Amino acid sequence: MNGAESLLRTLLAGGVDLCFMNPGTSEMQFVSALDRVPAMRGVLCLHESVCAGAADGYARITGRPAATLLHLGPGLANALSNFHNARKARSPIVNIVGEHSTLHLRYDAPLTADVEAFARPVSGWVHTLDSPARMGAAAAEAIVAARRPPGQVASLIVPADHSWSDAGEPAPALPVPARNAPAAARIAAASRIIASGQPAALLLGGSAASEAGLAAAARTGLPVFLNRYSALVPRGRPWASARRVAYFPEPAEAMLAGLKHLIAVEAEAPVSFFGYPGRRSTLAPEDCAVHLLAAQDEDGIAALQALPAGHAPPKEPALPVLPPDGPLTPESIGAVLACLLPEGAIVSDEMVSCGEAVNTALNLAAPHLLLPVTGGSIGQGLPVAAGAALAAPGRKVVALEADGSAMYSLQALWTMAREKLDVVTVIFANRRYRILDVEMRRTGAAIIGPRADQMIDISRPELDWVRLAAGLGVEASRAATTAQFEDQFRRALSHPGPLLIEAVLA
Amino acid sequence: MNGAESLLRTLLAGGVDLCFMNPGTSEMQFVSALDRVPAMRGVLCLHESVCAGAADGYARITGRPAATLLHLGPGLANALSNFHNARKARSPIVNIVGEHSTLHLRYDAPLTADVEAFARPVSGWVHTLDSPARMGAAAAEAIVAARRPPGQVASLIVPADHSWSDAGEPAPALPVPARNAPAAARIAAASRIIASGQPAALLLGGSAASEAGLAAAARTGLPVFLNRYSALVPRGRPWASARRVAYFPEPAEAMLAGLKHLIAVEAEAPVSFFGYPGRRSTLAPEDCAVHLLAAQDEDGIAALQALPAGHAPPKEPALPVLPPDGPLTPESIGAVLACLLPEGAIVSDEMVSCGEAVNTALNLAAPHLLLPVTGGSIGQGLPVAAGAALAAPGRKVVALEADGSAMYSLQALWTMAREKLDVVTVIFANRRYRILDVEMRRTGAAIIGPRADQMIDISRPELDWVRLAAGLGVEASRAATTAQFEDQFRRALSHPGPLLIEAVLA
Repeated sequence: MNGAESLLRTLLAGGVDLCFMNPGTSEMQFVSALDRVPAMRGVLCLHESVCAGAADGYARITGRPAATLLHLGPGLANALSNFHNARKARSPIVNIVGEHSTLHLRYDAPLTADVEAFARPVSGWVHTLDSPARMGAAAAEAIVAARRPPGQVASLIVPADHSWSDAGEPAPALPVPARNAPAAARIAAASRIIASGQPAALLLGGSAASEAGLAAAARTGLPVFLNRYSALVPRGRPWASARRVAYFPEPAEAMLAGLKHLIAVEAEAPVSFFGYPGRRSTLAPEDCAVHLLAAQDEDGIAALQALPAGHAPPKEPALPVLPPDGPLTPESIGAVLACLLPEGAIVSDEMVSCGEAVNTALNLAAPHLLLPVTGGSIGQGLPVAAGAALAAPGRKVVALEADGSAMYSLQALWTMAREKLDVVTVIFANRRYRILDVEMRRTGAAIIGPRADQMIDISRPELDWVRLAAGLGVEASRAATTAQFEDQFRRALSHPGPLLIEAVLA
Repeated sequence: MNGAESLLRTLLAGGVDLCFMNPGTSEMQFVSALDRVPAMRGVLCLHESVCAGAADGYARITGRPAATLLHLGPGLANALSNFHNARKARSPIVNIVGEHSTLHLRYDAPLTADVEAFARPVSGWVHTLDSPARMGAAAAEAIVAARRPPGQVASLIVPADHSWSDAGEPAPALPVPARNAPAAARIAAASRIIASGQPAALLLGGSAASEAGLAAAARTGLPVFLNRYSALVPRGRPWASARRVAYFPEPAEAMLAGLKHLIAVEAEAPVSFFGYPGRRSTLAPEDCAVHLLAAQDEDGIAALQALPAGHAPPKEPALPVLPPDGPLTPESIGAVLACLLPEGAIVSDEMVSCGEAVNTALNLAAPHLLLPVTGGSIGQGLPVAAGAALAAPGRKVVALEADGSAMYSLQALWTMAREKLDVVTVIFANRRYRILDVEMRRTGAAIIGPRADQMIDISRPELDWVRLAAGLGVEASRAATTAQFEDQFRRALSHPGPLLIEAVLA
């Protein structure tokens, strides 16, 4: 069998059965092989950022890698910003990049580029295949590299002639290393801190920012914080007392004030998103010691379970109530979402300036999974939602997006329509890069003059998300009042398949 | 003055007065400084690929750099594929990338990435500013680096604190090196080949693929070929006899058959776009010697002018005629364009599978400038058109786009609407990655099965370009017959500002 088929069969043997692709000439053999390897599902995306973001969303939900199939250096380049987010999320992804045939590579053809150099900044593992006979082995290694805890992007670069040449049999799956056991000394040290009665809290990230991790953490009676940029966090009433560290440094510092010990589980000491003039980047009090209980590649849940039990876990908060009719605000949208979000829903969050109000409201919602921003590269929200929907058929996915952010990868809507994915997208339309109003002041530029304002204002012309969605095959509506939004969101919940609501903020 | 203002003033002193931007927090000082430095024009783009492509288009038309202003590693990552095209076009661009403040960089904040590593594969010059006091000097060096013949992307990475700190005065412009004089020995060698009477031809690229270069080349009486992937080529009746080397190797080889000498001027020996099984990559006959007359950084026009004169230049072809009404085909669209295209128009070409028919027809059009694909990274057509329109107010810009390709950077339509750019976009809608039907067979995958077909078909759901354009603020219409297309294109020519025609192919 040729190299392309050997690669697809090796991926399948290793449990990778979904491939997000935007192929070109150098990937034609892989596309052709889909008909001989029907267990591999190909999902076409109209931009590579959608491939990378969808693979990230899929990995966050399943813990397993999907593959991406991209065309040469430029195709990979288009995927890098969402691979950056996947890298920060520690998402396992097997990234296959086609390359010119080896005989063609010596010439400076238009598409010739340094593919490895593009891949390195976002990949934990990069390998250019050097012979067709190595195809199966290299693909099996790529899967293990992607899955090695805590997870990473593994980029396998495949010259076109290695795909069309005979490559022998596919390789069997290699063993995937498990997370390392947590160090007993660290567990003992954390236990002593807890026993001391000094003000201490837990900070959970990675696999510990999960239902099992939160349950184990609650047992200790300590306050629990969540790394804001975790790949996936359970949210809603049962976990309302576990707080995500705030975005801006002042509220984050207020949350952590008074602590003498922060016990970090698969997480680093928290730092602010940006640095600002005259302000430190770290968020914990200066006299607070940060202790690592489990590193990113260790089993943080087991470490938490080994800590001594303390007080009873906190009670759930009261049920949310629907807001009265009125102009749409982040708060009123948040209240509607908190009341209506179905249990087990998956929320992809890229709301930016509206996020704080809505996420606060969602603490009162039924239990659900939140897919937060991890790397801050704008354009993840819609692709991640698409990947999550493929990962969890039967669960409602809600993509909460800003109008500015959604523009970076709106092509994801087309893939949602094509694959009939059960995603409700809510566009928070304030016609502005609103967060920059705040950041402008924070970085010391006191006055936003009229020319600066034009670089933040996105209202001329106004983006029409109802038409944009329709142009991409997704049914859409516009809401300008709380009652309209509530109506449309209720309808979306009873309507399987993709739908978009443009929520025009007052 | 602070670093941001010093940088903007240094850019202005060096002749850079236009900046395509998609700023974030780390670039807020630059945005703020726009009100203090009103001669710098900021053009907002909703995706970084539009910034890079527009700067490429601007540079190709003016020969001078615009600036781009991008947000950290991920913002740069989104621009890389169009910077790849700019690199292949040898376009001068001053690429400013904001970075975290130096004190914040030591932490692994979400957006922290290796910005230099992202920049290197597409940049001829990369520099991270190491102190605010160096801002002016570094910006002046970046301009020279960008403009050094034949032109390149110069990336200056600026930590946020160097923008908000005091940075002293802007730097004056540094001298820009001119192209090197061509080597007398190479001119003598080429002259001897011409005198020998052996079958010889010229191959022009770079600055020699210009009106002056073509005029000098025509004087020699030799057949003239154009590097297909030149940044900018004059096309239309006066230059119809100068042929662009074909995309596929078979017609390219047929064009060059029988030649014993190919005299390359700012160009390399031509190679095919892709390598294919059992076929060499070079296109000139195997017994044809390729002689370099002028390297990419040399004055190819002067070299051509130094060659001996030969026969009289060839006559212009006949005038084109309007096609009869009927279903839309690339040929009928090409005939309409050839008849109606105004003299001096600028054509941005990313038609892919429709390109051969339309470009052949455009050889009969009034003299115009063609902006071809240079690096093959899909998504350049609309951004390059936007940049060309800003570079040449008063000239009509026509963007010829495929429906598949246009999806990679459709955000450019919004910038066209916002800046009221005089661009007619024609979408060749065949609802398919049509070129891949051909490439699939060429790479040895004989049969396109139903599952492979789904990775090439983009008709489910159908993209509605009229709605997409309207959603981005651009007036649009749909044409399904030759008469409809002719009507709509005539109207577009008399209508200043952006307009889109979705040409639905039969």
